[in-house]
Amino acid sequence: MVFRVGVIGTGNIGTDHANRIASQVSGADVVAVFDVATERAKEVASGVGAVAHATDGDVINDPEVDAVLIASPGELHAEQVLACIDAGKPVLCEKPLAPTTAECLKVIEAEVAAGRQLVQLGFMRRYDAAYVEVKAALDSGDIGEALMLHCLHRNPTAPDWFTSDLALTDSVVHEVDTSRWLLGDEIATVTVLAGKPSPKAGSAQDPQLVVFEMASGVLVTVESFIHAQYGYDVRCELVGSEGVASMDTPTLGAVTRRGGRTTVVPPDWRVRFGSAYQAELQAWVDSLASGEFHGASAWDGYAATAVAEAGLRARAEGARVAVELVDRPSFYAGK
Amino acid sequence: MVFRVGVIGTGNIGTDHANRIASQVSGADVVAVFDVATERAKEVASGVGAVAHATDGDVINDPEVDAVLIASPGELHAEQVLACIDAGKPVLCEKPLAPTTAECLKVIEAEVAAGRQLVQLGFMRRYDAAYVEVKAALDSGDIGEALMLHCLHRNPTAPDWFTSDLALTDSVVHEVDTSRWLLGDEIATVTVLAGKPSPKAGSAQDPQLVVFEMASGVLVTVESFIHAQYGYDVRCELVGSEGVASMDTPTLGAVTRRGGRTTVVPPDWRVRFGSAYQAELQAWVDSLASGEFHGASAWDGYAATAVAEAGLRARAEGARVAVELVDRPSFYAGK
Amino acid sequence: MVFRVGVIGTGNIGTDHANRIASQVSGADVVAVFDVATERAKEVASGVGAVAHATDGDVINDPEVDAVLIASPGELHAEQVLACIDAGKPVLCEKPLAPTTAECLKVIEAEVAAGRQLVQLGFMRRYDAAYVEVKAALDSGDIGEALMLHCLHRNPTAPDWFTSDLALTDSVVHEVDTSRWLLGDEIATVTVLAGKPSPKAGSAQDPQLVVFEMASGVLVTVESFIHAQYGYDVRCELVGSEGVASMDTPTLGAVTRRGGRTTVVPPDWRVRFGSAYQAELQAWVDSLASGEFHGASAWDGYAATAVAEAGLRARAEGARVAVELVDRPSFYAGK
Amino acid sequence: MVFRVGVIGTGNIGTDHANRIASQVSGADVVAVFDVATERAKEVASGVGAVAHATDGDVINDPEVDAVLIASPGELHAEQVLACIDAGKPVLCEKPLAPTTAECLKVIEAEVAAGRQLVQLGFMRRYDAAYVEVKAALDSGDIGEALMLHCLHRNPTAPDWFTSDLALTDSVVHEVDTSRWLLGDEIATVTVLAGKPSPKAGSAQDPQLVVFEMASGVLVTVESFIHAQYGYDVRCELVGSEGVASMDTPTLGAVTRRGGRTTVVPPDWRVRFGSAYQAELQAWVDSLASGEFHGASAWDGYAATAVAEAGLRARAEGARVAVELVDRPSFYAGK
Repeated sequence: MVFRVGVIGTGNIGTDHANRIASQVSGADVVAVFDVATERAKEVASGVGAVAHATDGDVINDPEVDAVLIASPGELHAEQVLACIDAGKPVLCEKPLAPTTAECLKVIEAEVAAGRQLVQLGFMRRYDAAYVEVKAALDSGDIGEALMLHCLHRNPTAPDWFTSDLALTDSVVHEVDTSRWLLGDEIATVTVLAGKPSPKAGSAQDPQLVVFEMASGVLVTVESFIHAQYGYDVRCELVGSEGVASMDTPTLGAVTRRGGRTTVVPPDWRVRFGSAYQAELQAWVDSLASGEFHGASAWDGYAATAVAEAGLRARAEGARVAVELVDRPSFYAGK
Repeated sequence: MVFRVGVIGTGNIGTDHANRIASQVSGADVVAVFDVATERAKEVASGVGAVAHATDGDVINDPEVDAVLIASPGELHAEQVLACIDAGKPVLCEKPLAPTTAECLKVIEAEVAAGRQLVQLGFMRRYDAAYVEVKAALDSGDIGEALMLHCLHRNPTAPDWFTSDLALTDSVVHEVDTSRWLLGDEIATVTVLAGKPSPKAGSAQDPQLVVFEMASGVLVTVESFIHAQYGYDVRCELVGSEGVASMDTPTLGAVTRRGGRTTVVPPDWRVRFGSAYQAELQAWVDSLASGEFHGASAWDGYAATAVAEAGLRARAEGARVAVELVDRPSFYAGK
Repeated sequence: MVFRVGVIGTGNIGTDHANRIASQVSGADVVAVFDVATERAKEVASGVGAVAHATDGDVINDPEVDAVLIASPGELHAEQVLACIDAGKPVLCEKPLAPTTAECLKVIEAEVAAGRQLVQLGFMRRYDAAYVEVKAALDSGDIGEALMLHCLHRNPTAPDWFTSDLALTDSVVHEVDTSRWLLGDEIATVTVLAGKPSPKAGSAQDPQLVVFEMASGVLVTVESFIHAQYGYDVRCELVGSEGVASMDTPTLGAVTRRGGRTTVVPPDWRVRFGSAYQAELQAWVDSLASGEFHGASAWDGYAATAVAEAGLRARAEGARVAVELVDRPSFYAGK
Repeated sequence: MVFRVGVIGTGNIGTDHANRIASQVSGADVVAVFDVATERAKEVASGVGAVAHATDGDVINDPEVDAVLIASPGELHAEQVLACIDAGKPVLCEKPLAPTTAECLKVIEAEVAAGRQLVQLGFMRRYDAAYVEVKAALDSGDIGEALMLHCLHRNPTAPDWFTSDLALTDSVVHEVDTSRWLLGDEIATVTVLAGKPSPKAGSAQDPQLVVFEMASGVLVTVESFIHAQYGYDVRCELVGSEGVASMDTPTLGAVTRRGGRTTVVPPDWRVRFGSAYQAELQAWVDSLASGEFHGASAWDGYAATAVAEAGLRARAEGARVAVELVDRPSFYAGK
């Protein structure tokens, strides 16, 4: 069976997803596309043999569409996801689930009411082989109990409008999910430390140092550096009571010339996480058949937004801020 | 469009291929399967929603089959490939094209007569990201002219029937293709040196050291070690006049415990080259639409068998043996 | 000329130093030794061909002694160093200069009054080739301006009496000096975060996360983990505006067996920093001739103790604590 | 006790040795120096506080000289070593012991007649920590029986007069000793393969591929490349029946900038093997007291020359050449 996917949003990541589903994922086609940038949407649609619709609702409610992929601006996500739930269609939504916890909770309420899981969040690192290996090392017991987690998240550059706040809500949000997923634990408090800003960072406070305290007490450090210049470099090291699990930005080989032995650093997230996106999309399509989704849930999306909100307050107030979560509905147990 | 693939041979690699095409490759289904092991064939067919046929010819000539993947024993390849050419169907044939150059030449003759490329050989390393990076380093000019190539090919263990001859024809044959492809050059001579045999190798002469002299004079060393015990470890280092391009068995992360920092070595080729097989199959399916095949050609299969034949003589005679190739048909220029 | 060194304190590090000066350093002999553990002192003295004296003062004032190495308990350092200054003898003092800034300032006063540099502190990392390489990368301008520094300091185990306070004053004090030296900057504030304690750490709060804010705003993170079990692992990564300089626990080679490829982690600081101690001692002996000392000065010792004091308060109060330093005497400019 | 060393030959390596003994080795001074380049000898002598003598014999027979270090041109070594034996003085002789086996045998005869070991050969790799680790891995049994050894020996450039013959006798001779020492075995045959020459190599045949067959059957491959351009890169990988021991050109850290993560390759042997030379000289000076020398012996020097001679014939004849050794005198058992 081939699932027919509708794609909402044809920016960089939406286009990548559409192309990947069309040409590299088994069991799915892209049949409908929407973006407010009409020409771009048509171009992408034509490339994958799909129709460009006039509105996001047209995609969601198209009877030819079995499932929806949302890659629109974050402030539109909640409404679009709710419409998918209304339509009874599974949806893979890029992060964030919504910019506010209030909206996230509406999604959770709707999904719980629907009685079956329809929402998966696009936290692709859960499908990255290196992160998976770190998690496997912890879960195996080989490194004992988790005690600390050190994360680096470096981008080469960011546009002017990418503020220090966005660095938290759009970039560090990946470490939020990574920490919760790796450690199987909620984030209890957030602290944001501002250090010396890079002269390359314009008006942004960059880099920033973020500290999470997990419910269990495990400390997580996150260096967020969106103007690191040299490349896209995302890594973590998980410190256990019996050993350490670490991952590197994967390398394939080296070229040695006068000056030294050099390994390549990926230029951006599309290169670094290309195979994670591939695995994520294939797994999601496989889930369409089984009805069992193994990626991040709406709850994970809600928790991520809750931490991001706390992070913004922590940054504004220069203080440690507690993350307040509602009780997790039993619906999400084991999801 | 979805291409309908018939799979001949459901041993380890045939089953892997069938499952991968069915569940991980975009644009193709498996519709027909054959193996002399009837029960096994049925099982695989049922898993991928295909029909199990009574003979290989039934698969090849099934009007529902657009293209054929051959993963049967090597001595059957030539005949099956010829039948595919006869039927005008594209075929992806696992190495070897045939155990003898005489049979390989028949395939070449038939394909040239057919007037369009139908045959691709399953030398999957050409799709491995690490090998691709080595080739890119050479092709970029960064390391100057190629001068030497050092290859390691280690398997953890091999069954008793896997003789030292098979180590050349079934295992080192990958280095034959790798050398030819990386260097864009033919192998002129082969020497096989027998050293101290491993006590783990039973009656096999293992490891062996193989030396190729390319037409350009570039020397290639190949350590072939099929009872290396510790894992599957395949690597090369390409020495240029201005620098060196090297690759490692890729690693994702490390676990550090008392005793040291340990990175995993893959247990076998299925793990090591999983993503290369994925890329190879997707590229082949993409080629079914374009008619342009970019993998190893029938000529590459012939050349590999010619070198393997020379290798067997070199091993038997303890001497350097020249590889004699027929003139390459112009049909294969640029393929 | 051969300098005659007196060694005070023959615990682990004092004994190592005595033996190293006697048998691996050019231009120096050990001629006198003292420890309250009389038998131990005699044994060490006999091994290096020296005399065991009855008191530390006897060593310092022995006319046969040209220079003194102090490796006694930290609370005795200030008095012993002052006696060396009194006697006009150069002294290499293991860290700390003194446990309190008040005592450190007495040493500074005395050295300034003496009018020539006599005191060097035993911060050996300044002589470690890997740390030197990180500093060289920063000083070369290759990585732009320093923005953040991430440090790990892991010991396999510590005795029961090694409290979380000692982890700061005896262990993290190395990162204090490393940060000041690498960055050429003073530490302005200290924060100590207590996370989930290791079940292996007994009553100690371990690991701890320490954050320094440098006067320039550069942030420094230090993971201090004295019961890491697996080995002695000390590293840093310096993040600049144009790139990153990192160092690893050095490795020489790897052994690959079933289970993976393993590199050794040093069991303790004696192995990890053996060549740094060697370089430190040789440099100090060379300085005895020139009168120019290039290692850490009494000022560096004072600053380290000031930060450690602030760290203890930061830990006790769970708050960010400012480091208050007196004005640096011009005597120490460029030292 | 301080041993008084005489140094013969003040070229690069002789000067390095003289300076190192004078300023970095414990227990020895340089008291006398000779070189035919009189001015250079005087300059070196003055730097280390020694006397410059008029002849090599004056150094050897100077009653103030306890032991001799020979770093003169290789063709003078045998005569000078014989004079040291005559004078009953221990001698550390740079490789080769002599350019011909005939001369080497005279030294052996004289040393055996003297009845005590006086001669150590300057094969410094035996003191390199990375090589020592490879040997330890083999000796521990962890990797099973040795089966193959792969060696790389790359220099950045060589002067015009450094012929392909010299690459064997002056450069690969280190791999001769390394192979014999690591494997505890004699080299039985030598083969030299000439491949495509580097355009940077002038008239030299470079790189060359050398194959040793050890008496036990273990095969050794040596890539000798004296115009590798990019740096000094010397490594080996020892393949055992249960695993592999490998070493890398040691690195301390990395700098990551736009373009990638780069580790330094040493520019020359002085940098790469600086600490090995240091360890070698300290060990030799320590041996002067004990009378027990643990480095390469005159027998090792003879064997190295015998293999080099065979290598020259193998190169000239393009054939595998057997190494013929006289019976080893029992005097050298365990040395």
